[in-house]
Amino acid sequence: MKPVVVRNIKRADPAGMAEYGVSTVHEAYDRLGLMKPYLRPVWAGAAIAGPAVTVLAQPGDNWMIHVAVEQCTKGDILVVGCTTDNTDGMFGELLATSLQARGVQGLIIDAGCRDIRALHEMNFPVWSRAVSAKGTVKATLGSVNVPVVCAGVNVDPGDIIVADDDASWRCRSATRPRSPRRRGADEGGKRKRLASGELGLDMYSMREALAKAGLVYVDNPEDV
Amino acid sequence: MKPVVVRNIKRADPAGMAEYGVSTVHEAYDRLGLMKPYLRPVWAGAAIAGPAVTVLAQPGDNWMIHVAVEQCTKGDILVVGCTTDNTDGMFGELLATSLQARGVQGLIIDAGCRDIRALHEMNFPVWSRAVSAKGTVKATLGSVNVPVVCAGVNVDPGDIIVADDDASWRCRSATRPRSPRRRGADEGGKRKRLASGELGLDMYSMREALAKAGLVYVDNPEDV
Amino acid sequence: MKPVVVRNIKRADPAGMAEYGVSTVHEAYDRLGLMKPYLRPVWAGAAIAGPAVTVLAQPGDNWMIHVAVEQCTKGDILVVGCTTDNTDGMFGELLATSLQARGVQGLIIDAGCRDIRALHEMNFPVWSRAVSAKGTVKATLGSVNVPVVCAGVNVDPGDIIVADDDASWRCRSATRPRSPRRRGADEGGKRKRLASGELGLDMYSMREALAKAGLVYVDNPEDV
Amino acid sequence: MKPVVVRNIKRADPAGMAEYGVSTVHEAYDRLGLMKPYLRPVWAGAAIAGPAVTVLAQPGDNWMIHVAVEQCTKGDILVVGCTTDNTDGMFGELLATSLQARGVQGLIIDAGCRDIRALHEMNFPVWSRAVSAKGTVKATLGSVNVPVVCAGVNVDPGDIIVADDDASWRCRSATRPRSPRRRGADEGGKRKRLASGELGLDMYSMREALAKAGLVYVDNPEDV
Amino acid sequence: MKPVVVRNIKRADPAGMAEYGVSTVHEAYDRLGLMKPYLRPVWAGAAIAGPAVTVLAQPGDNWMIHVAVEQCTKGDILVVGCTTDNTDGMFGELLATSLQARGVQGLIIDAGCRDIRALHEMNFPVWSRAVSAKGTVKATLGSVNVPVVCAGVNVDPGDIIVADDDASWRCRSATRPRSPRRRGADEGGKRKRLASGELGLDMYSMREALAKAGLVYVDNPEDV
Amino acid sequence: MKPVVVRNIKRADPAGMAEYGVSTVHEAYDRLGLMKPYLRPVWAGAAIAGPAVTVLAQPGDNWMIHVAVEQCTKGDILVVGCTTDNTDGMFGELLATSLQARGVQGLIIDAGCRDIRALHEMNFPVWSRAVSAKGTVKATLGSVNVPVVCAGVNVDPGDIIVADDDASWRCRSATRPRSPRRRGADEGGKRKRLASGELGLDMYSMREALAKAGLVYVDNPEDV
Repeated sequence: MKPVVVRNIKRADPAGMAEYGVSTVHEAYDRLGLMKPYLRPVWAGAAIAGPAVTVLAQPGDNWMIHVAVEQCTKGDILVVGCTTDNTDGMFGELLATSLQARGVQGLIIDAGCRDIRALHEMNFPVWSRAVSAKGTVKATLGSVNVPVVCAGVNVDPGDIIVADDDASWRCRSATRPRSPRRRGADEGGKRKRLASGELGLDMYSMREALAKAGLVYVDNPEDV
Repeated sequence: MKPVVVRNIKRADPAGMAEYGVSTVHEAYDRLGLMKPYLRPVWAGAAIAGPAVTVLAQPGDNWMIHVAVEQCTKGDILVVGCTTDNTDGMFGELLATSLQARGVQGLIIDAGCRDIRALHEMNFPVWSRAVSAKGTVKATLGSVNVPVVCAGVNVDPGDIIVADDDASWRCRSATRPRSPRRRGADEGGKRKRLASGELGLDMYSMREALAKAGLVYVDNPEDV
Repeated sequence: MKPVVVRNIKRADPAGMAEYGVSTVHEAYDRLGLMKPYLRPVWAGAAIAGPAVTVLAQPGDNWMIHVAVEQCTKGDILVVGCTTDNTDGMFGELLATSLQARGVQGLIIDAGCRDIRALHEMNFPVWSRAVSAKGTVKATLGSVNVPVVCAGVNVDPGDIIVADDDASWRCRSATRPRSPRRRGADEGGKRKRLASGELGLDMYSMREALAKAGLVYVDNPEDV
Repeated sequence: MKPVVVRNIKRADPAGMAEYGVSTVHEAYDRLGLMKPYLRPVWAGAAIAGPAVTVLAQPGDNWMIHVAVEQCTKGDILVVGCTTDNTDGMFGELLATSLQARGVQGLIIDAGCRDIRALHEMNFPVWSRAVSAKGTVKATLGSVNVPVVCAGVNVDPGDIIVADDDASWRCRSATRPRSPRRRGADEGGKRKRLASGELGLDMYSMREALAKAGLVYVDNPEDV
Repeated sequence: MKPVVVRNIKRADPAGMAEYGVSTVHEAYDRLGLMKPYLRPVWAGAAIAGPAVTVLAQPGDNWMIHVAVEQCTKGDILVVGCTTDNTDGMFGELLATSLQARGVQGLIIDAGCRDIRALHEMNFPVWSRAVSAKGTVKATLGSVNVPVVCAGVNVDPGDIIVADDDASWRCRSATRPRSPRRRGADEGGKRKRLASGELGLDMYSMREALAKAGLVYVDNPEDV
Repeated sequence: MKPVVVRNIKRADPAGMAEYGVSTVHEAYDRLGLMKPYLRPVWAGAAIAGPAVTVLAQPGDNWMIHVAVEQCTKGDILVVGCTTDNTDGMFGELLATSLQARGVQGLIIDAGCRDIRALHEMNFPVWSRAVSAKGTVKATLGSVNVPVVCAGVNVDPGDIIVADDDASWRCRSATRPRSPRRRGADEGGKRKRLASGELGLDMYSMREALAKAGLVYVDNPEDV
């Protein structure tokens, strides 16, 4: 693959995924697509969902992020993978200003981020593997809108990204939509029953399976 | 050891340990029992102390946490060790609702935790090694109320756990109680003297020991 | 080098570096001198700049920090390196009280820190590699005001330290001062243009260099 | 994606890639496709190339590796990704015996491996992220021959895998073949010239570019 | 717990555990007791089993290892835990000479080790978390023959330790002996059948359970 | 500091340091100067000592290593620090051929290395933080023969480097030479006494200090 920028990508529709949150949504999708937990929000409280514009960057080099800005449209989420592990501050206030001007919702970057106080004040959310002031060069090409691996997950351009305080997650653009709505509703019902003191062991009918698997109850430590 | 749940454990009394904090309390206990610092609170500001109900979990599997809920009583702290390093989100809002309904004060888990915003809103404190939305299965047995290693520390059922923004700590249930109270008072006196400009070198009478150990003072870098 | 305390060091003048922030200032100094990003503030929001008083400490031993207090004067920043990687809580409320009484602005420590809630209440900022309640001994000598490596950066006594939410940075005391002021101003101008929708590709005139480096634009994924 | 086993995959032809080695081959493919360096051979000296049969496994669970054996044919390389970071010993002597009976060349596993002495004696090479004796369960489904991320690289079933003492690498099955042969030859020529004392600065004609980039030569440290 | 040396411990009998190896033995003991895989042999090829003499050491301080030598008898294995994570070279040729003179079989240390070439020549095996030349002090007390946590596992004095190229493992001294012998034999039988091409899927009768769990076979990727 | 190559450096004389080894030598120099233990030899058995030629490299870029070759003379050891953590394979067979042609003894690199089998066959030793085939670019300047931090240690051009299977170590060029010879001899004497069964507790006269520090001996675990 030669360095390339793909101009037209097919964006998947995130529907109302942001409101359910990553924990609920990813369960509806077979518990797949979660980025590794070393990716953390640089400020807490944001929750976004939108299609991915992807960047493949070189270590210590943010040239392709500048290139990617032009490919973004309203509602997009920029997703940056890196050819090797790197924590340099590839992204800061100026790039965020530029992305926000185009309506981009946020950034997921498998590298470092800086200017985190300004990013918070601007209300521009970033999930990164590190906070680092280390400036980067603009010397080596990568690509825009090609498949990238970001924090252990393969992201194709246009895939849906959902991110909140818990994690970042992607759903393949070709995947049929599933309904987290019901799950969300379910959770509300369960919450009430558990809050009233009903045990999950009973609510989920786990006792028989536990016994079958061989779980033994004893009264005292000496009985072990 | 076969998978087992021990029903009756002897709970140690945490007395007023929560108010002194882990840093002060653990010094009174020979600086032992501190869990490794990779365990961090998922939200800041909580400080708890209580007896441990312990869980030995399998990686990616939170079945035994569901089992453990039934063994908890008011004031307990749930402590979860894992048979291998794992960051999956074994614990979230629903389990917290269930524990809170039983009066459990908080959770110490050597694995991941999710729904951290909801946990904060519920005022249910968790110390974990990671924040991760990754859901878990309920497929393999572990045990409840057996000795577990959590973040580098062996915890027996009933041991006292103290946790705050600094760290998590356990004191063996069989240990004779010691008085952090005096230490707390001491600290107040020292604080005033240090704030007034008195040097620790003098207050702690360190100068003689330093000289004896061979410390040399020189006036300028060239004299080194 | 035998254990030594150097009394007189030549302090560099931080001028107005604190207000520009590490990200802006370090760019003016060739992107060198940044400490590794594992060093993080224990509470967010502080921004300081001042000359370094340096400590070389042994693992699990904070004796030399006590010794260093006496060498500090108003405006200093204490910088602690450790002879081997260590996360013990070498620093807490009492030492902070003592340093604050002498007018010290903050601490950069390549080890652990404790009492972080109290440090926040005192408004004493600390950048550390870990939060840990683990108390330390006072048994083995190190040195004060000798060159130390802190989080991957060599710091000489008197070097300027700048630290904020992004990172910690040092500038060699012998370095000629450079002007972050202009850069700060530049950033303001750029920010406005980017906020208005102008692309960085155009503002920084990157298009020609990208084409020369071989970047290709294609319309669709199938064209890759 | 539901748990699935895909029976028929299109296997790419590794040609003579094994003899050139990963370092040489991956340069011919734009330096992309390298797995992260935490993946290391459990014994040194093997060098293999072949098409991938892929496994998506759950943490602490090697059920799908057993399933995958049946899908392997002579010359294949088994590639195992895991839904979350895990170091358990998912693979050992018995599975290796079974794979070897089917002509499989080796294993790339983003998890742990055990029985490493026996694997060496059998001459069955494994690249893993850890050596661990920890046995695994067979309780939760994953998939076979679906795209997986292994050590930071996306691997599709049938992709070419090359692995040696340096690293593990994959080339997408849809990629047009490139000729490492010339590069290998080039290296031989360069090696002789460098061994005779010719400088790379001259052989690669770097001096002009260095000067243009601003590199300055000074005679003494004081001139810096 | 005050610093203490316990003179008389009850040593468990390792029977013939060394010959089966950790991977086989630990399966017979419910897959518990394995030390974390960051503990690695400093030279390959050793396999030992014997009762533990335990040491609790301070970071950067090997004083208690010197103390422990006197408590060792023929056949023992020294197990060293550390109060905080530390990689200093606490152990080298001289201490190994002393232990070997007393008939000690080897060392498991959750810290660093040095002189590894000499240790190999002496045929004294060590499992450590790091190789480091860093010398240590003898300044702060720990304890000998108290329970310690070593690489994530609680070890009581007298517990059986088994270690080989795969891992280090402990079995509680109070545990009833189990027979790895049969398991070893089983493995031999299975090995032959697998080598002849029989599938594990059939040999272990896994097909029904897989189908019941929902595994689906499809012929082509497009069918997923 | 602008990108610069310093041509004339003052090389310190390593005397016969290689034969004593890092563990012995560094003790004679106050246990300072050891590089972090994540730096490991890519093949075992080498032991070298010589003056440092230093390189400051950018992540993913080995341009300055090519520049540095010209500055090396017979007996030198090349030491490469990197402006941010990086594991890319900055060094391989061709550069080693070039260095060996100039009489360079080996390489210490705080980044990755590749072609490790060829390096072994050439008998060119390398200590690196990773083995990685990842090729690098030649795009951004660094410097040659300026002070660099390599694996946590500041190295000035001309400093003495000693490296063996245990570790890598540097001694400042301005330091007065010390005699590891006596220490080496001492070790021989001690080794014999310890091998004959004499305890270190007695040989080093530790018993009094231990008692004074408060160490207590008890006969049985119940007495603790």
